[in-house]
Amino acid sequence: MPFQSVHSSIRDIITGENVRITEPCNLYGCSIGNGCFIGPFTEIQKGVMIDDHTRVQSHSFICEKVTIGHHCFIGHGVMFVNDTFSEGGPSGNPAKWKATHIGNYVSIGSNATILPVTICDHAVIGAGAVVTKDITVPGKYAGNPAKKIG
Amino acid sequence: MPFQSVHSSIRDIITGENVRITEPCNLYGCSIGNGCFIGPFTEIQKGVMIDDHTRVQSHSFICEKVTIGHHCFIGHGVMFVNDTFSEGGPSGNPAKWKATHIGNYVSIGSNATILPVTICDHAVIGAGAVVTKDITVPGKYAGNPAKKIG
Amino acid sequence: MPFQSVHSSIRDIITGENVRITEPCNLYGCSIGNGCFIGPFTEIQKGVMIDDHTRVQSHSFICEKVTIGHHCFIGHGVMFVNDTFSEGGPSGNPAKWKATHIGNYVSIGSNATILPVTICDHAVIGAGAVVTKDITVPGKYAGNPAKKIG
Repeated sequence: MPFQSVHSSIRDIITGENVRITEPCNLYGCSIGNGCFIGPFTEIQKGVMIDDHTRVQSHSFICEKVTIGHHCFIGHGVMFVNDTFSEGGPSGNPAKWKATHIGNYVSIGSNATILPVTICDHAVIGAGAVVTKDITVPGKYAGNPAKKIG
Repeated sequence: MPFQSVHSSIRDIITGENVRITEPCNLYGCSIGNGCFIGPFTEIQKGVMIDDHTRVQSHSFICEKVTIGHHCFIGHGVMFVNDTFSEGGPSGNPAKWKATHIGNYVSIGSNATILPVTICDHAVIGAGAVVTKDITVPGKYAGNPAKKIG
Repeated sequence: MPFQSVHSSIRDIITGENVRITEPCNLYGCSIGNGCFIGPFTEIQKGVMIDDHTRVQSHSFICEKVTIGHHCFIGHGVMFVNDTFSEGGPSGNPAKWKATHIGNYVSIGSNATILPVTICDHAVIGAGAVVTKDITVPGKYAGNPAKKIG
């Protein structure tokens, strides 16, 4: 069988002090700040920047073009998206992928899905929410698509 | 790079007879009954109690303060939640985390999200559902938030 | 402790040329066409057939009785379902599981859930969608349950 298999690994990453990681995970070309925790079964792609004291829980996927502030909590099974299939399918051209910026003290509940958006400081995203638009006012957001609930 | 890396493992768990586990998984401090199956890419935290003949499928996460009855089926990618961010973000105080109790013969579909609730015997939770309230009447529940559909 | 542990692996699969796989993953008894990519933390069960140049991203689960066409994109954390709990819980009888057929050039967004359905060529499924019915008209579908949005 002619398939090629490589193993997930931690490679070419920059970290601050006191970073704790639980493997297996697939982290490459990203930057992780002081005091961060990265759970198992996670993938974080190149160019991602995660600021100090942020925790990324198990099963989450953070794609290229995402930045996350400090003191954030990314729950379990959270998926970030940078390609909105705007031309009817995935774009092979990274220049067409869109960025996501997560502020500071943002909490994202488990199984949430984050389309390319900006989320302001202190926002709370409920578990299972699908965030399709920018969030500019702190508060709690939930549902599919996510709406302000508190 | 000063990060600390540990590997997922099976440690300090109590199991009954004929328990089958597919690794990699991260299981610690939990109790798993007779005849249970635990799929790959799962994490089950300390204090979780799973009764006999229950199956936990791949990619699921079961947090502290969850109990699951016998003959249950936990689908793939199911995420349990114990912290509702009630104070605007994650609580560092486990005393503020809330419990979830799943009855017997409960079936939970894949990619479902289970907030801290009690679910009665014989309830069926549809795939992709987000369960935000107690379920006290057997039947089928689906949607975000989950509602009774049958 | 009397539990039995096995490790995820790649076994009894048939692949075309230039297939790339990132481990750990649990792939068994399935068929994967030329030029396909399979990401880490995936499980693909026996009998699944994936046609040429299709990509299956990290954290996805593809169950028995699923076929996927060529040039498809299966996002991260996508879960397929073959058992609809139609008798109030999981069926132990595979003859009661239902099939899913995904056409060609289909794109499925991250964290989507796909019940047993047929999806036509060129359909686009949004991130976080829960697809409960056949999709016979190309276009973009999103929400829980998924509806046509474009």
